[in-house]
This record gives sequence, structure tokens and C-alpha cells, in this order.
Amino acid sequence: MHERPAWYDSAFMRAARREAVEYTPIWLMRQAGRYQPQYRAIREKHGFLELCKTPALAAEVMLVAVEQLGVDAAIIFADLLPILEPMGMDLEFAAGEGPAIHNPIREPADVERLVELEDLGPLEYVMETVRQTRAGLDPRLPLLGFAGAPFTLAGYAIEGGASRDFARTKRLMLTDPAAWDALLGRLARAVARYLNAQIAAGAQAVQLFDSWAGCLGPDEYRRHVLPHTRSVIAAIAPGVPVVNFATGNPTLLPLLSEAGGSVIGIDWRVRLDDAWRAVGYDRAVQGNLDPAVLLTNATEIRRHAKAILDQAAGRPGHIFNLGHGILPETPVENAVALVDAVHEFSAA
Amino acid sequence: MHERPAWYDSAFMRAARREAVEYTPIWLMRQAGRYQPQYRAIREKHGFLELCKTPALAAEVMLVAVEQLGVDAAIIFADLLPILEPMGMDLEFAAGEGPAIHNPIREPADVERLVELEDLGPLEYVMETVRQTRAGLDPRLPLLGFAGAPFTLAGYAIEGGASRDFARTKRLMLTDPAAWDALLGRLARAVARYLNAQIAAGAQAVQLFDSWAGCLGPDEYRRHVLPHTRSVIAAIAPGVPVVNFATGNPTLLPLLSEAGGSVIGIDWRVRLDDAWRAVGYDRAVQGNLDPAVLLTNATEIRRHAKAILDQAAGRPGHIFNLGHGILPETPVENAVALVDAVHEFSAA
Repeated sequence: MHERPAWYDSAFMRAARREAVEYTPIWLMRQAGRYQPQYRAIREKHGFLELCKTPALAAEVMLVAVEQLGVDAAIIFADLLPILEPMGMDLEFAAGEGPAIHNPIREPADVERLVELEDLGPLEYVMETVRQTRAGLDPRLPLLGFAGAPFTLAGYAIEGGASRDFARTKRLMLTDPAAWDALLGRLARAVARYLNAQIAAGAQAVQLFDSWAGCLGPDEYRRHVLPHTRSVIAAIAPGVPVVNFATGNPTLLPLLSEAGGSVIGIDWRVRLDDAWRAVGYDRAVQGNLDPAVLLTNATEIRRHAKAILDQAAGRPGHIFNLGHGILPETPVENAVALVDAVHEFSAA
Repeated sequence: MHERPAWYDSAFMRAARREAVEYTPIWLMRQAGRYQPQYRAIREKHGFLELCKTPALAAEVMLVAVEQLGVDAAIIFADLLPILEPMGMDLEFAAGEGPAIHNPIREPADVERLVELEDLGPLEYVMETVRQTRAGLDPRLPLLGFAGAPFTLAGYAIEGGASRDFARTKRLMLTDPAAWDALLGRLARAVARYLNAQIAAGAQAVQLFDSWAGCLGPDEYRRHVLPHTRSVIAAIAPGVPVVNFATGNPTLLPLLSEAGGSVIGIDWRVRLDDAWRAVGYDRAVQGNLDPAVLLTNATEIRRHAKAILDQAAGRPGHIFNLGHGILPETPVENAVALVDAVHEFSAA
């Protein structure tokens, strides 16, 4: 007889399956990061990509964060973009600046330069981060893997970095749908392999980040993005919860639901109750506190946490989180106050 | 007997009153701008603020754009931020960079530094731009005035420039609502005076730009922003159409409607038919083509224009526009193709 692993009945995994929980589970996007003195100390000695590529350090920063905050899930410390390196993109994180890709895809013909990701060998450090984080983590807590969604990865590959309006990305998408679909298809297959490898290495759930999908309207998302996100999610190992998260445009929520995912991630631009109705009650939801609320004080944080919990009350399947990554200027004690407030109010 | 001015029965003014039109009126946000060779030639000789403060030039760039595009309305060439100068903010537009405010509001006590705008004298160049643009414009076309909405102006005054997450703005808003309301109240009174002065100088309609409101969720917008936007709109001279425009979050649309405005501006993150339903059919709507579509080609532009017109069909009160400002890399002939397509399809 096979005994169920301890994490199987964790609050996070139960909520992801929409089962009743004793308290609402919470974790925070970017819970290991610049807002923590310990993280900043490590970053003084190691570059960002170096940290991502050193599993012992990557595991350490996450385990410190989980311990410090008392959250109900860990997520591997990694980045959306390194998957593009073995696909042929020349990636750099310059100090104090955002990521830069030095050989971006600019014309339809450039799509060929993004090669099929056949061999996950160059990303082995990520799987090793999964193993080491899992090994150090409380067995009762789940570990999440993650990846960028095809649209967001394409946006980086085409723009070469952050962008305000994604003009180049949209121009390629609208003027050459065949090249676009070839590009997103290649990215979708790479992301699915990458996430399944993280699962094989020991992750209990995975999250897809479509951080930039909010620059699209619903018709463009449906036509040019949804099929690719759907193909990623359909390829994930059965039984593993997928959190499908996009930010920036609440009108996409029903389409995220259509694309798949047992949990839909919600940002703060919509009330959680309205979001859940739009997503459908056959899904769990994750969210959705504005990260800026963590810059205030315990009273204000508790008031906002309570309001969100009230919107989710009476229905299993809510995982508390921010609506986007924690801000670097967040006081650590405020993040702790949020975790405590969510546990306290939801257990009551 | 008083004869009605020629612009009164223009397609724009009729649509703003939700009266039947022979074709859908169109104008484009930032229709005078960097995408035009004529504008770039003027900007080679004059700084941006200098251009804004030289009514003859400001009128010229707009009149050239109206002529070149064949649009159905002009809007004064001006900027959201100069209103902050006579209120005590030290504003600069450095070449190649966004605007910067060198003495931003950082603490609640700083709010006092933003002084009540009693005297519109320092903004007289804007009223003169209204007069000169009106004088040069086809009498059958309306001229719009405009201003930033209180939230967006507060965001600039607090952040000191563009921002990704508006962390300082939200912190002030959430931690000191009294200081926040004092700040937005002062801005709202200033904006109302400023818009009414533009109307007195000869503008037929006005648009409020809440370019950054999309960083807020609906509960925060309702509590901290809506009352101030409402007080601006309530103070506008009766009978003058107000376009109430915000970008970045379609869930705010019913609240924009609550705040007021006979026309609600819509960005491209939502279908126009869904947006109109959310706004209420007792309002006209303006929008909502993704500006990135103008980077493609005539075929694609016509396809998108048709789709939006179809969503608005059968109901008077649609003014065609982009969902945000025209992008600098837009080919002029593509903007012309859009105007022609909207006129052609809607007259058919």
C-alpha cells in the first residue's frame, strides 16, 4: 500500500482541489526577494542569474522566506527568462536594470532563430533547485514550479526587454499569424516540457505567469494566445494542479478559464467575488491583494485581507496571494502581518 | 433669433448627444504628434513645453493633423501636466525622457505645497491656444479641450514622473485619506476651473484623461477617486459634453459612468459592446481600437475598424477613437486609412 505524501493534504493542495480547508492557505508571489535583508545580503555577493543558476543558494533564499513568513507553499526561486537561453536567445540581467535580450526576434524570418527546446540539459540547474528546495522544505508543504506563459515569453523575445505598449509583439502577431503561431507553438512545447521536468524533479503544482497578457483585448487573446496556453496546460502531468495567472486585464478571466488550469490567478483590478463568478465556480482562485497594501500598516493590511476573505467565504477553493509580486520596498513585518491575518480570520 | 453654430450639428456633437448621425465621427488621441513628419520638423526647433506654450505653433500642429487625417474633431495641443506649475510643482520635460517633477509630494505634510489654483493667468497660453485653434478650424468641426483627471495628476505629483506600480501614490491614498482627499479636492477644483476656462475660450466639449486609474481596483477607485472625478464633472458648464476617459482596467467602467460624463472613453482591453453594456446605454461611448493595429496594414486596419463598428451598430452615440494615444511609429497613411474606413463603413 502506498501512503499519501504529507503535502497531499496541505491547505494549498486541498484548496487547489476545491476541498474544505481549516484555514485559507496563503503564499506571496516573489516571497523570496529584495524586500528581505537576507536576500539583499546574498545578492550583494551574487548576480541575479548566478543566484538562479546556483541551486543551493536558490533553495536557501526560498526556504528562508517560507520560514520567515509562515506561508503555506514554497515556489522555486527562478526566473521566467532563462528558458529562452537554450532556445537561442542571448539574455543578460545588467545590475540595476531589467532583463535584456541582445538578439531579439524582430521579423517573421527571425522566428527560425528560436530553436525547439529538445534537450532540457542546459536547464538542469532548475530541476536541481526543485530537488534541493523540496529536500529542505517541511514535507507538509507543497513546492510549486513555474514558467512564463507563451505570450509573455514571446513578448520578451520580440521586444528584447520590458515594453510599455508591446508594439513590435502585436505587429508580428497581427501581420503574420503563421510566424506568430510557429513562435508560440515552439514556446508552448518548451514550457510544457520544462514544467513537466520540474514536476518530475519534485514540484507538486505549477504556475504559468502571463504577466503581460493584459496588454491584449479579449478578441486578440482568444485568437492568438489562448490556443497556445491551452496546449501547455493540456500537456501537464495529470493530477498536478496548474495555476493559470495573467495580470493587467480582468476581461480575460473567462478566457483564462477556457484555456485551462484548476486554479485561476487573479490580480487586484477586479473584486475577487466578481472574478470568481467570471472564472466559473468549477475552478479554484488565487489572489488578489494589491501589493501596494503591504506598504501601509497592520490595521490597513488586516482590513483589506478581511475584505478579500469575505468575498471568498462559503466556497472552498480560495488560495490567498497578492495580485502581483511583492514590492521591493515592502517591510518584512507587513508581509508577516498579512500571513497571520489571513490565517487568523479564515480559521475563525 | 440666435442661429446655431455650425459645429452644433457636427457628427461628433450629435453622437455625444446620442442623436442619429450620417456616419460615425472619428478623431484620434494624440492625432498631432511624433508620428507626423510636420510635427517632428517643428519639434526639431522647439522643446515640448515651448510648443505647448506657443499658441500659434500649438494651433498649427493640430490644424495640420485635422487637415491631414480628415477627422471629425480637433483637440487642443497641450499636455496634462502644465496645470501643476502654477500650483507649485517644478516641472521639466527633458529631451528624450518623460516628464519629471523635481519637488514631488512625498509625505502628507507636502500636500500643503500644492497650492489652490485661484488665478488661471499663468495658463493663459492654453486659452489662447483654444482661441487660435478655434479660429483656424473649419466652423463645422468641434474643438475639444482637455485636462488630466485628479487621480492621474496626483499620481504625477507624488511619483514625480511615470511609475510602474504607483507605490507612493497608493501608500498616501491608503494611509492618510484626509491628506489624500485634500490633495484630490484641490486638484479637482483646479481642473474644473481650467476646463471651464477652456470652454469660455471656445472649446465645444472637454475630455478628462485618467490615464493611470487602471492601476486601481474598483473598491479603491470608488472610495478614493470617484468622488473627486464626479466633482470635476459636476462643475463643468451645463450642456457641454464631457468625455470621461480612463485606461487600463475595464472593471472601472461602471464607476466612470457613476462619476459622470455624457461620453465614456473605452480602451481596447474590452470589447466595445461589452463596454457599452457596462457603462449603460444612457451614455455615448468613445473608442476603442488598439493603437498597435495602426502599425499593420490597410487590410488589417479595415478588418478591426469594421469589427468595432459592428459592435456599436444600431445604437446612436458612438464616437470612434483609439483606446489610447497614437503610437509614434505609426505610418501616417495608416491613420488616414483608419479614418477613411470608419467613414466608409459607417455611412454604408
